[in-house]
Amino acid sequence: MTTSPAKALAQAMIGEPGSRYRLPTPALVLDEAALDANIAAMAGRVRGKAGLRPHTKTHKSAWIARKQMAQGAVGVCCAKLGEAEALSAAGMRGILLTSPVVDATAPKRLCDIAQVDPGFVCAVDHPDPVTALAADAHRRNLRIQVLIDVDVGLMRTGVSGPAAAVALADHIARYPSLTLAGVQGYGGHWQHIEGFDARREAVRHGMETLAGVVDALRGNGYRIELITGGGTGTVGADLELGVLNELQPGSYVFMDTQYADALGDDADGRFGTSLWVSSQVVSVNAEPFVTVDAGLKAFATDGPAPRPATERFSNSTYAFYGDEHGVVSRPPGAAVRLGERVEFVTPHCDPTVDRYDSYHVVHGDTVVAIIPIDAARSSR
Amino acid sequence: MTTSPAKALAQAMIGEPGSRYRLPTPALVLDEAALDANIAAMAGRVRGKAGLRPHTKTHKSAWIARKQMAQGAVGVCCAKLGEAEALSAAGMRGILLTSPVVDATAPKRLCDIAQVDPGFVCAVDHPDPVTALAADAHRRNLRIQVLIDVDVGLMRTGVSGPAAAVALADHIARYPSLTLAGVQGYGGHWQHIEGFDARREAVRHGMETLAGVVDALRGNGYRIELITGGGTGTVGADLELGVLNELQPGSYVFMDTQYADALGDDADGRFGTSLWVSSQVVSVNAEPFVTVDAGLKAFATDGPAPRPATERFSNSTYAFYGDEHGVVSRPPGAAVRLGERVEFVTPHCDPTVDRYDSYHVVHGDTVVAIIPIDAARSSR
Repeated sequence: MTTSPAKALAQAMIGEPGSRYRLPTPALVLDEAALDANIAAMAGRVRGKAGLRPHTKTHKSAWIARKQMAQGAVGVCCAKLGEAEALSAAGMRGILLTSPVVDATAPKRLCDIAQVDPGFVCAVDHPDPVTALAADAHRRNLRIQVLIDVDVGLMRTGVSGPAAAVALADHIARYPSLTLAGVQGYGGHWQHIEGFDARREAVRHGMETLAGVVDALRGNGYRIELITGGGTGTVGADLELGVLNELQPGSYVFMDTQYADALGDDADGRFGTSLWVSSQVVSVNAEPFVTVDAGLKAFATDGPAPRPATERFSNSTYAFYGDEHGVVSRPPGAAVRLGERVEFVTPHCDPTVDRYDSYHVVHGDTVVAIIPIDAARSSR
Repeated sequence: MTTSPAKALAQAMIGEPGSRYRLPTPALVLDEAALDANIAAMAGRVRGKAGLRPHTKTHKSAWIARKQMAQGAVGVCCAKLGEAEALSAAGMRGILLTSPVVDATAPKRLCDIAQVDPGFVCAVDHPDPVTALAADAHRRNLRIQVLIDVDVGLMRTGVSGPAAAVALADHIARYPSLTLAGVQGYGGHWQHIEGFDARREAVRHGMETLAGVVDALRGNGYRIELITGGGTGTVGADLELGVLNELQPGSYVFMDTQYADALGDDADGRFGTSLWVSSQVVSVNAEPFVTVDAGLKAFATDGPAPRPATERFSNSTYAFYGDEHGVVSRPPGAAVRLGERVEFVTPHCDPTVDRYDSYHVVHGDTVVAIIPIDAARSSR
């Protein structure tokens, strides 16, 4: 694949003051200082209370994952097999695959990761894929760690309760090629509940379910060392409740609008925005608003509308206006110029990031590096 | 960049019967016969009445564009500079860039395309980028065709009426390095109006505006040969009204849910689905539904919900259930198996396609080729 002209132009301006505002657009702009501060803040918050295994489905980048490891993360989480493969190929170790995978090719691919990563762990919620994985691992003389995914109320993946968990543990125990590493309980539906107390109350119910499963497994003689789960929105509740001994937050590295709105300035929300989508004004002929070159293909559209972060447009509103365009209400003051830059806080960061190939890392107004999104779409 | 395991697996199954249902998921599946039928149907519908310059922002693929050219298309439209660059690099000629671009690097990049593509045309709606383009074209001894984008009511891009159009034409006329090729008027807001008559009525108003601009330009001595615009939803009205002499439909190649719902079986809607997102069932433990591995990162989320096309799930509903997952209500009949495939009609095809790198072209149940999405995200 040849480098596109836009990428070559961006590369050529690395190190130039003002380059942040001359990038080909739309582009992801990542403030390294804000990113580092978020990574340090979460590490400090969790340190000594639980293990931290940040979820990389948010950023999909080995460069960011390495920063997290340098701050004491015990490994990284991946949501998909392709993501785990890409981050493994980029050198990450201690990968936890948080979603059950069932494809016929999965056993071989999971073994390939485990072969280079002794810390690899994968979630399971059904005996059939366990049987298939055990057979491949046996053939390859590997011992693979699995954890039982427990449904704590989301009803997306996971076993439904203590009896199902024990049955699955019994099944896993039949295979010397597998080790039961622990359990996982993730409540995606809790993450954006507004108000710390309401969020903690929801988490408490789910963690009771998870604790019950752990008790049942231990009661049946299983040693459950790893109890993993949680997200950016529930770190406070998870630390307070103390059921989980490892946390998997992801979005805190960037802090998107969706989280900022839900968490406000409560204990879970004290992270700064580090990621923006940069756009430029491409048409100024309409009266009520100006048109920018970032539309449905530049953002996730499942969350709140993109919010302008550029000071001059801070009271403007954005509306999607087609695949490649959006409109921004005119700010007070001088007429808006063609080419004027408007940066937006990402509305929902994970599916926004997955629309891009690279981060433009900035120090102030200067692009200092272009970092690949290693696992972008390789999850497919 | 190395080939991902998922891509290597998909490549290895090309030609194998049943491979469509064994692809790593999520994946785009494209039925070549249905695609060809759509391309032929649109070509037949427009032939002899107007030029056809299909919009490639939908598919971003030179392979599909070549099929359109083979059926008589006069060229292809691109929505972004990066898209035009990618398709130019892939050998496409007769490219029309439908959106004004204003970046400081745009003049050089537009000249690069024009240098290899004598049929290249780009839309403008403001004198400043015209001045800059003319200077670069002059330096490089090129003569570049521009067309005046006219706002026909969408208020996204385009000049606002006859006086502004004539002023811009006068500005263009100052530069021997530019040729005024014609005008463009696109009403994105008309495309999904339900009911042929209501749609035609909306188009009629906009086309009166455009015709007024053409009259004013001709009255001022400008030869306006190209009058281009339109989309999949307005082809019937555009042909009937006869203002446009070139049409730019894009989505008809795939026919997504959004268009199918709006157009029904009226004259504009007689195209078949050719594109699906293929997923597989990854968890079956929850009672009300099963979980598939296609979520917010696998689809556009601005349109209707993804609709299952796989027969057994044809009465099931889908709901987004996180970045990587969705849930599908359980069908009647036998229990759903892990790994069972569920294909979905793309809800809004353009921003769905832009989430992927390749099409898996199928003949029936067999993958026959994997085609790159040449301009995927290079538009950034």
